[in-house]
Amino acid sequence: GVAAEFAVPLHAKGARVIDLSADFRLRSASVYEQFYGDKHPAPELLEKAVYGLPEVYREQIREALLIASPGCYPTSILLPLLPLLRAKLIHPTGIIADSLSGVSGAGRKAEIPYLFSECNESMRPYGVPKHRHLSEIEQELAAAAEQPVTIQFTPHLIPVTRGILTTLYLAPMKHFSTNEETAELSNKISRCYLDAYEKEPFVRLLEGSALPDTKHVVGTNYLDIAWRLDSRTGRLVVMSAEDNVIKGASGQAVQSMNIVCGFAETAGLL
Amino acid sequence: GVAAEFAVPLHAKGARVIDLSADFRLRSASVYEQFYGDKHPAPELLEKAVYGLPEVYREQIREALLIASPGCYPTSILLPLLPLLRAKLIHPTGIIADSLSGVSGAGRKAEIPYLFSECNESMRPYGVPKHRHLSEIEQELAAAAEQPVTIQFTPHLIPVTRGILTTLYLAPMKHFSTNEETAELSNKISRCYLDAYEKEPFVRLLEGSALPDTKHVVGTNYLDIAWRLDSRTGRLVVMSAEDNVIKGASGQAVQSMNIVCGFAETAGLL
Amino acid sequence: GVAAEFAVPLHAKGARVIDLSADFRLRSASVYEQFYGDKHPAPELLEKAVYGLPEVYREQIREALLIASPGCYPTSILLPLLPLLRAKLIHPTGIIADSLSGVSGAGRKAEIPYLFSECNESMRPYGVPKHRHLSEIEQELAAAAEQPVTIQFTPHLIPVTRGILTTLYLAPMKHFSTNEETAELSNKISRCYLDAYEKEPFVRLLEGSALPDTKHVVGTNYLDIAWRLDSRTGRLVVMSAEDNVIKGASGQAVQSMNIVCGFAETAGLL
Amino acid sequence: GVAAEFAVPLHAKGARVIDLSADFRLRSASVYEQFYGDKHPAPELLEKAVYGLPEVYREQIREALLIASPGCYPTSILLPLLPLLRAKLIHPTGIIADSLSGVSGAGRKAEIPYLFSECNESMRPYGVPKHRHLSEIEQELAAAAEQPVTIQFTPHLIPVTRGILTTLYLAPMKHFSTNEETAELSNKISRCYLDAYEKEPFVRLLEGSALPDTKHVVGTNYLDIAWRLDSRTGRLVVMSAEDNVIKGASGQAVQSMNIVCGFAETAGLL
Repeated sequence: GVAAEFAVPLHAKGARVIDLSADFRLRSASVYEQFYGDKHPAPELLEKAVYGLPEVYREQIREALLIASPGCYPTSILLPLLPLLRAKLIHPTGIIADSLSGVSGAGRKAEIPYLFSECNESMRPYGVPKHRHLSEIEQELAAAAEQPVTIQFTPHLIPVTRGILTTLYLAPMKHFSTNEETAELSNKISRCYLDAYEKEPFVRLLEGSALPDTKHVVGTNYLDIAWRLDSRTGRLVVMSAEDNVIKGASGQAVQSMNIVCGFAETAGLL
Repeated sequence: GVAAEFAVPLHAKGARVIDLSADFRLRSASVYEQFYGDKHPAPELLEKAVYGLPEVYREQIREALLIASPGCYPTSILLPLLPLLRAKLIHPTGIIADSLSGVSGAGRKAEIPYLFSECNESMRPYGVPKHRHLSEIEQELAAAAEQPVTIQFTPHLIPVTRGILTTLYLAPMKHFSTNEETAELSNKISRCYLDAYEKEPFVRLLEGSALPDTKHVVGTNYLDIAWRLDSRTGRLVVMSAEDNVIKGASGQAVQSMNIVCGFAETAGLL
Repeated sequence: GVAAEFAVPLHAKGARVIDLSADFRLRSASVYEQFYGDKHPAPELLEKAVYGLPEVYREQIREALLIASPGCYPTSILLPLLPLLRAKLIHPTGIIADSLSGVSGAGRKAEIPYLFSECNESMRPYGVPKHRHLSEIEQELAAAAEQPVTIQFTPHLIPVTRGILTTLYLAPMKHFSTNEETAELSNKISRCYLDAYEKEPFVRLLEGSALPDTKHVVGTNYLDIAWRLDSRTGRLVVMSAEDNVIKGASGQAVQSMNIVCGFAETAGLL
Repeated sequence: GVAAEFAVPLHAKGARVIDLSADFRLRSASVYEQFYGDKHPAPELLEKAVYGLPEVYREQIREALLIASPGCYPTSILLPLLPLLRAKLIHPTGIIADSLSGVSGAGRKAEIPYLFSECNESMRPYGVPKHRHLSEIEQELAAAAEQPVTIQFTPHLIPVTRGILTTLYLAPMKHFSTNEETAELSNKISRCYLDAYEKEPFVRLLEGSALPDTKHVVGTNYLDIAWRLDSRTGRLVVMSAEDNVIKGASGQAVQSMNIVCGFAETAGLL
């Protein structure tokens, strides 16, 4: 609501706007109202806005007048999921996203639950089962899957200042249990991620036995991804790590700005 | 392996043994070998051992000569799951357990990954997808479900000294989506948990909007449980919190000792 | 100011009051006004109040109607210093107290400086050079030294939830530099501390190479003390550790209550 | 000892060497032996080596063949002290340095005292009263004071990954107690620090009520300084904050490299 107050007049004057708030991330004013409780302040701008995920909407961002830069949870969930959905490698139903967030994700609010003595030596889920950011996450997943998508999302508050770690539980379209089936599916997933991200400067596909660790991305614009097929359960587990205030917020907005302005996309970020 | 060296001769001399190690938690020597890599050191004792979860095996513990006290992850997963499986309220397939553990869970090993500077400001999954403790977890789940159970389990290392937080993703047997169906299923789950734990001194069922927070159980022998039905996804999400070195280890062993010795079960623990 | 509102009428009704606030810790209403800015709300009660440090005023506490229980910084500074001053082993001038406090010392205030993201990975001095609690510290030091005492005190805020660590820099009365002189002075200090605290249940004199660590006292009513003579500089360095919310607050008040009520002094505390 | 193995042959081949170890920081082989226990491995190089503190030895670094870059504690103590000693504003005797260090200061050693569960929620002094780095600190202080200097130094281990906070207790040469005397001395100290550091890119003199906080320097090559005159005690208290692995180690070495190579001194550091 607040960002629209600035974005609308700036847009009206012809300025190109990169908005870090949630105001223009949804294409539907009614979904906005359902998740945020208020009427959308400028519904006519929703269809002009581009969702500012450069790895997905780079070309649209280049021309966009209004860019709605995604926040920390959506980025950590969407980048690992979108290629798999587009390639129809996983079922679009039954997706589970279990996320861990550092305390800076709550903003700089002087509220009791975010005091040091409350957060330190604490681990806790919150906002179960329906979090506001589900709306934009499901919108983007649906676009990739070409059908409606509803996911299970559980955020947890963890005593670190920065970082998001997301663990995704997914059902591959193709059954696998023999070594051969597992190897074949493995190759497809690997190929799918390489096609999507091999040339991306800010998405790193971890290799070998490495698993994401927020320590390795905090202070950077990187999002790290690793995945494992579990032949015992028939599931694909994908894990991602990012810095919630860089790739999950301001860094990603700078990345979009670089695209908008024709700078090197990594300028100021590497 | 190491604990058996002490437990076997003590047992042979007629001592009653409460073992905190994993040596006697499995009923099957072949499952032990499959998960731990070595032949079991004393297979003849496996069938005499009682799994030391007082809320489940209180009567057997009272008479047991050898008690295999469960560790932190199994306790945090089994106590929330067993009543639901026994009551056939959830499908025994497709269970997902996402767990967060404090660093003391790794023991007091002088190894680089557990140094302060490595763990602090870090969040990371590990042991994906097959963790040793799955063997005892699945053994106990299968006993409750009366059929084999295979679960998805992802542990994460979190920068707190103590505490385990587990989030369980479950599929109720009965479909629910209307308010009426949700309320009905809600009542059944509530009843099921009350029947199981209302009189238990160390399991607390959280009420209202409260969700588990390890801060509220660290330093105690409590395990806290909360759950939510999500009518958007049709799933049941159950969350538990415990202190990994008390309810998840030594405190639970003291609880068993109290039962064995005929002391008040809460002696020294409340 | 606030506590007096409760303590005064309770006292008037004949109740015995143990006050955790700073309201009745000073014997002088004018010093109170100088350090706290307001006129004292009940100056007539000041001379009736006993400073609730059981190791120093045990007999007076037994009979007291109003006990002003000391806070965290004073306890951590006074217990190590008082025996040395009473024995005239150190100069009462030039004393330096450098203290480190956990964030719970600031109370449960929803203020920006105490948010997790502000305190975590931060170390900072504050209130330099004149802290309110200096008034009661200097009052008690002066009583022991039998002359006015002015100390240098620097508190620091450290990212732990609980604990106070104080390092004291002191000038022994007697010069020492040879091994013989050092050994002789060492014996005197050792004797002085043993006389004061050998039989105290809550003061532990560390031996050998051990130095205080707040980890060893948090959750207890203990105050740990170690000291070193430095023949290079001619100084005595004394270090203490305590839990600011137990020995530095509520635990100490319970200790006084036990004395007042004729209970074992360690009841509920060991 | 180890660094000399590399530095000596490199130096012999004519390479210019910037050494981060303590091997060449002392001018005296006998002081080295006294503090480090071994004979110095290459005493003939000691007088060629320049102590790599750019704010003090910039011109010598420019021409040096061997630069001994100072570590974290010395940098945090020397930069605040040297201007005051050179200007004879403080007594060179009786100096106390109380330092707090993050755990990365101990290096990446797999040892029990540096495990997460040992350091987290712990505050502890160590190495009291004689720390190895005293030798180089006192050498540089003596050079500034033009007389031998012996200081009291107490390091503490604090649960942060990075950062050093040092609090210095100093005795001004000139007595002050009236407002006028305090203001006059204040002006002199202020002038002294401005003369020394006003144009330095990496030393920041804090103004107004600001005090150093390691959070504000971690990740940077800055050292922040603030000071207070305490007319109650007649002392000057100076506080500094730096990142132990940047200004206190590698960043400072890069700063020297920039000088050696004729690059902008801030290249890669701002």
